[in-house]
Amino acid sequence: MATIWARQALLPGGWAREVTVRLAGDRIAEVTAGTPAPAGARAAGILLPAPANLHSHAFQRAMAGLTERRGEGGEDSFWTWRRQMFAFLDRLSPDDVEAIAAFAFLEMIAAGHAAVAEFHYLHHAPGGRPYADPAEMSARIAAAAAATGIGLTLLPVLYMQGGCDGRPLARGQDRFGNDLDRFARLLEGAEAVVAALPGDCRTGVAPHSLRAVPPAALAAAAALRPGAPFHMHLAEQTGEVVEVEAALGARPVAWILDHAAVDGRWCLVHCTQSERAETLALAATGAVVGLCPITESSLGDGIFDAVAYTAAGGRWGVGSDSNIRIALAEELRTLEYSQRLRDRTRAALATPARSTGRVLLETAAAGGAGAAGRDAGMIAPGRLADLVALNDSHPDMAGRAGDTALDAWIFARDGGLVRDLWSAGRHLLRDGVHPRAAAITAAYAATMARLLTG
Amino acid sequence: MATIWARQALLPGGWAREVTVRLAGDRIAEVTAGTPAPAGARAAGILLPAPANLHSHAFQRAMAGLTERRGEGGEDSFWTWRRQMFAFLDRLSPDDVEAIAAFAFLEMIAAGHAAVAEFHYLHHAPGGRPYADPAEMSARIAAAAAATGIGLTLLPVLYMQGGCDGRPLARGQDRFGNDLDRFARLLEGAEAVVAALPGDCRTGVAPHSLRAVPPAALAAAAALRPGAPFHMHLAEQTGEVVEVEAALGARPVAWILDHAAVDGRWCLVHCTQSERAETLALAATGAVVGLCPITESSLGDGIFDAVAYTAAGGRWGVGSDSNIRIALAEELRTLEYSQRLRDRTRAALATPARSTGRVLLETAAAGGAGAAGRDAGMIAPGRLADLVALNDSHPDMAGRAGDTALDAWIFARDGGLVRDLWSAGRHLLRDGVHPRAAAITAAYAATMARLLTG
Repeated sequence: MATIWARQALLPGGWAREVTVRLAGDRIAEVTAGTPAPAGARAAGILLPAPANLHSHAFQRAMAGLTERRGEGGEDSFWTWRRQMFAFLDRLSPDDVEAIAAFAFLEMIAAGHAAVAEFHYLHHAPGGRPYADPAEMSARIAAAAAATGIGLTLLPVLYMQGGCDGRPLARGQDRFGNDLDRFARLLEGAEAVVAALPGDCRTGVAPHSLRAVPPAALAAAAALRPGAPFHMHLAEQTGEVVEVEAALGARPVAWILDHAAVDGRWCLVHCTQSERAETLALAATGAVVGLCPITESSLGDGIFDAVAYTAAGGRWGVGSDSNIRIALAEELRTLEYSQRLRDRTRAALATPARSTGRVLLETAAAGGAGAAGRDAGMIAPGRLADLVALNDSHPDMAGRAGDTALDAWIFARDGGLVRDLWSAGRHLLRDGVHPRAAAITAAYAATMARLLTG
Repeated sequence: MATIWARQALLPGGWAREVTVRLAGDRIAEVTAGTPAPAGARAAGILLPAPANLHSHAFQRAMAGLTERRGEGGEDSFWTWRRQMFAFLDRLSPDDVEAIAAFAFLEMIAAGHAAVAEFHYLHHAPGGRPYADPAEMSARIAAAAAATGIGLTLLPVLYMQGGCDGRPLARGQDRFGNDLDRFARLLEGAEAVVAALPGDCRTGVAPHSLRAVPPAALAAAAALRPGAPFHMHLAEQTGEVVEVEAALGARPVAWILDHAAVDGRWCLVHCTQSERAETLALAATGAVVGLCPITESSLGDGIFDAVAYTAAGGRWGVGSDSNIRIALAEELRTLEYSQRLRDRTRAALATPARSTGRVLLETAAAGGAGAAGRDAGMIAPGRLADLVALNDSHPDMAGRAGDTALDAWIFARDGGLVRDLWSAGRHLLRDGVHPRAAAITAAYAATMARLLTG
């Protein structure tokens, strides 16, 4: 039974000092404050709940820096980026996807994420033909999770049409496509694969978007696995709002709230194009909004009103989405800074009792756990042991404790302060080092060199 | 005579391969492409001009993470932050300032900056009494520069009044204040101090702002050192625009353009509160706009229209300003992302011929050199050897060359790719390591522990 001893820990009731956390299997068994370090305990400086990364397309990591150009015709937008993304993924083999995903998961761990909800839509061979095993690509994502130890919530994506008008998939989308029957078999295959992973890993269901899934199929998808995490993209781009409004007669968020039983198992990703009333109505559902601030900046999506939503009690977490940069602290500060730039304020998400960084971390930990279907998100007995320890001997921590130490990490630093990480009790990072980092990194570099020069 | 050999280098005409750069003293003597590595050459992967950091208040580095809370009364703004900053700096001794500045300069070097323009306003002892040597604090900034080797452009700041109405300095501002006579002596003292640094280091003059310097004194300051770098804060906050408009009858940028001979030696810092006509008029002056995107996000200043300004031929560079986070790559991507979020586009600053990252780096290198009064900003014979080398064996560089490698650094990574750095030929960083990093970091940590717990 592993034991951790932290000079400071962020517990549900606030900061505590000299905290002993005893693990039993994948869970926290006991939390005791104000005690000296037990013999054999792993010393941690500042112990925090490690948030799940609630939205990732792992393979997109390989595109980082490849699309920062003007598209044809001199313009560039989300939609030109999307065409480049489709062209890029058409080259990826199952081996490539596994190598890229393992590297992305490694970076997530190093950044402070204990788990990832992988929104997985690249199912078939180029041209759209399923692999001999229809869950081949799901198995590769699971293998990457196994290689790194990250907690996986695998979300096979249902993708049926090329737009709200029901047009067929375009070239570039054919690797994603399934009808409901084929999707049900894929989902079973993915579940079988994930069953071989540690017990905290699980699956969910992810209708891609209102563009890719017609209303009747969305309802059918929601009925497939009652209670399981249920994720979809929603209201990311203005072009999407226009298309959904024309086809379905309402804005995306408003339509979903009117036509689906949105509850706590739902994760609605982006919602950057929400009007105030939609934002407040969302907060009342118990759903988690999946915010991806770095990607939403990179793609010019816009800024979600996290201030009004959080004040209304809304749940949210963060995801690295396109994986152009995997950096939990930067993800959190990018969210906060976008609110400040819009409102011309400071400390946008702080409350009188909690600093900005603390609200960011605590909300992302609770929301990320909810979205990933993990019984985690706080350091408390019975919860999964998803924990991250910051180095408190770093100069940025000198003389600081509690909220100001957390704020120093989130606003002044990045992953360099992350010292240890546990995912459901698996001790993945020790002194900043993952034991398989060298091999995973070398495989990724070889894959990239081949993909980009081949 | 030191020699560098790079697999790729960004030259004024574009990317070149197998580039030999010979240095003579502090300058580049010769640049030759397409040649094998000469014996004894320092191998560099990707060689770039290293931008100057054109706006820093070094001591504010020590406040990083201390002010991410709600101010009294439950609100938080630039102005509550400013009061916290005044209270914090009131505790700093000359020793403290030297230790903090050395650490900040070390981080700048590690991030890829060859030089810094230090906008230096903390002149006197607490309470406002000058030190026995009125340039005591300037000497400490110079000592920090000497300890790290960074190229210093020291900008003693003229700060005369508490607001546009001429009210006296408030408590907290008394360490900044000088009349013109006292400032002239301070400037001479600073010049004497900087004269003992390497020859690329220099001084300039920095009237703080239209709030702190009345119009007649601004004109007198401009006449003090004709041709020297001349920096001021301008149009950062809406509250400032209101105050200036009420007192002077015009918005800050418009007023300056009408009442001063703004030219290429001017650096106007922020300009976040510029209207379109002001932005375009600024571009025509040849002045450098000093953009500080991370700080402008942190303080909720707003977003400068860098797209329109750059398209109009305007010069700009970046500064780390409050130093809440010192990270050149992040500074550049934060600028680009703010443009995308405002305009809901991608690749906002890219041109048909140059990627986003290349426009960002080249513009910041040229503008930073101009603002710092350094004959640098490009890799060309006769220029100061301000150079940064990126590690091209990192997995993020696998299979990439030219613009996409640069974009991978700026959008996917951070300082971790910076391998070597030269400031005016001084080889400050080797394989990511500065020879004095350990001692400077230890001194900073000790200073912080004492300041925060004392």
